[in-house]
Amino acid sequence: MNTRTITSLTNPTVKAVRALHMRKARQETGLFLVEGLKSVAEAVALGRAPRILLHGEAAAAHPLLLRATTVAAETLEVSPAILGKISRKDNPQTVLGVFEQAFARLDDLDPTAAVCWVALESVRDPGNLGTIIRTADAAGCGAVILIGECCDPYSVEAVRATMGSIFATSVVKTSKTDFLTWRRRWPGAVVGTLLSAHADFRTAVYRQPNLIVMGNEQAGLTADLAAACDVTVKIPMRGRADSLNLAVATGVMIYAAS
Amino acid sequence: MNTRTITSLTNPTVKAVRALHMRKARQETGLFLVEGLKSVAEAVALGRAPRILLHGEAAAAHPLLLRATTVAAETLEVSPAILGKISRKDNPQTVLGVFEQAFARLDDLDPTAAVCWVALESVRDPGNLGTIIRTADAAGCGAVILIGECCDPYSVEAVRATMGSIFATSVVKTSKTDFLTWRRRWPGAVVGTLLSAHADFRTAVYRQPNLIVMGNEQAGLTADLAAACDVTVKIPMRGRADSLNLAVATGVMIYAAS
Repeated sequence: MNTRTITSLTNPTVKAVRALHMRKARQETGLFLVEGLKSVAEAVALGRAPRILLHGEAAAAHPLLLRATTVAAETLEVSPAILGKISRKDNPQTVLGVFEQAFARLDDLDPTAAVCWVALESVRDPGNLGTIIRTADAAGCGAVILIGECCDPYSVEAVRATMGSIFATSVVKTSKTDFLTWRRRWPGAVVGTLLSAHADFRTAVYRQPNLIVMGNEQAGLTADLAAACDVTVKIPMRGRADSLNLAVATGVMIYAAS
Repeated sequence: MNTRTITSLTNPTVKAVRALHMRKARQETGLFLVEGLKSVAEAVALGRAPRILLHGEAAAAHPLLLRATTVAAETLEVSPAILGKISRKDNPQTVLGVFEQAFARLDDLDPTAAVCWVALESVRDPGNLGTIIRTADAAGCGAVILIGECCDPYSVEAVRATMGSIFATSVVKTSKTDFLTWRRRWPGAVVGTLLSAHADFRTAVYRQPNLIVMGNEQAGLTADLAAACDVTVKIPMRGRADSLNLAVATGVMIYAAS
């Protein structure tokens, strides 16, 4: 463990970590940034080794950090100012970890491994995506499948919203075409959520394993994806609001179909 | 309607609107800031008159804006730079409205007016609070009751997350003591959500009108509030995540009890 405290933003490791706020750098390196000792320790407990660990002075002796440093490729103690430039938190307890992205592949999923699965079409908001990954983990879903142009599940904002669940949940990226082909072999119900559907989600017939398909925040599901569902349901709206937040709607559906 | 475009941040109206990002200014004036023509038009449709309207050049002739200006006390066209300083959006279509806060009172609530009600203890995150107000509106809940020290439902971030539902949903602020006194007359079930509860929320017995009580993001419900519930339930966790996002958990509970 390197005990020299880094104070310069021009340090090459600090620069590389900071660049992970940009999608381009994440795509080029296949790495992502995780904030907080709890999430870093969670990753290590799941067998994931940090490529880089950055931490403030006050975290240096924490047992969870010491355990993480034994498997980390590189560990640096940095000044609070550096932590503040890379993360929202600039206190000396802060720990940041850099890990390898680990997308799963559609063909490697085993539909019998869980009773509920989630697919999202063109999700736009990283906070929503991260919260959905957290919900999928909490509810024991098999995977979160991203169809088409989605926001990046490995962005700092999305990872933050997962609260560590990014390491425990399988995430798949796929095209609509590949999803529609793969979906034909799905052994349970493919359940689409649509504002224009007739069936109330509470009275619909589910058939495990259920694959919940949710559309984009503004536009909902596209017509061809909706047509590929076995059943479409709506979450009834009784007030003036004409829709739910996507992460809330997905949570309601996951617990209905689990 | 004033057609002179304001370009200076020292304009007194612009300064007053900008100050509403701070809780102190909101408390002193009893006003709050709403972003977007859709939300402003929603407020006007519900009979709420803007105290101030700010808009960019490209919004000037929009029928919904023209309707809002007929009931607004003051309307100013401002430069994109000013809009950008007050809001996240600096395009000339942007519309901002200032309205009076309108908290409801606990004693004015009619429990028979809705089948589901929501109470939140010490909620901390304005995004969560705004999303819960949106969900409560969508599901037709009677009110959202804020117990103890909560974040401000009229903060810009909370209002943004309500997507206009801040105008359609009754919001009450109360102390824990007053809530516990008022709760004794509640004619239905008071349902607390606790990670340590034994009953699964899907098999619990609800009795309309249901009052769902949710705790703080980190600590959950305090013991005396939990003890004041008729029934406590848990949302089962099957994965590694040990909790749900508060807005997701509240949404799941609202739809279970509606």
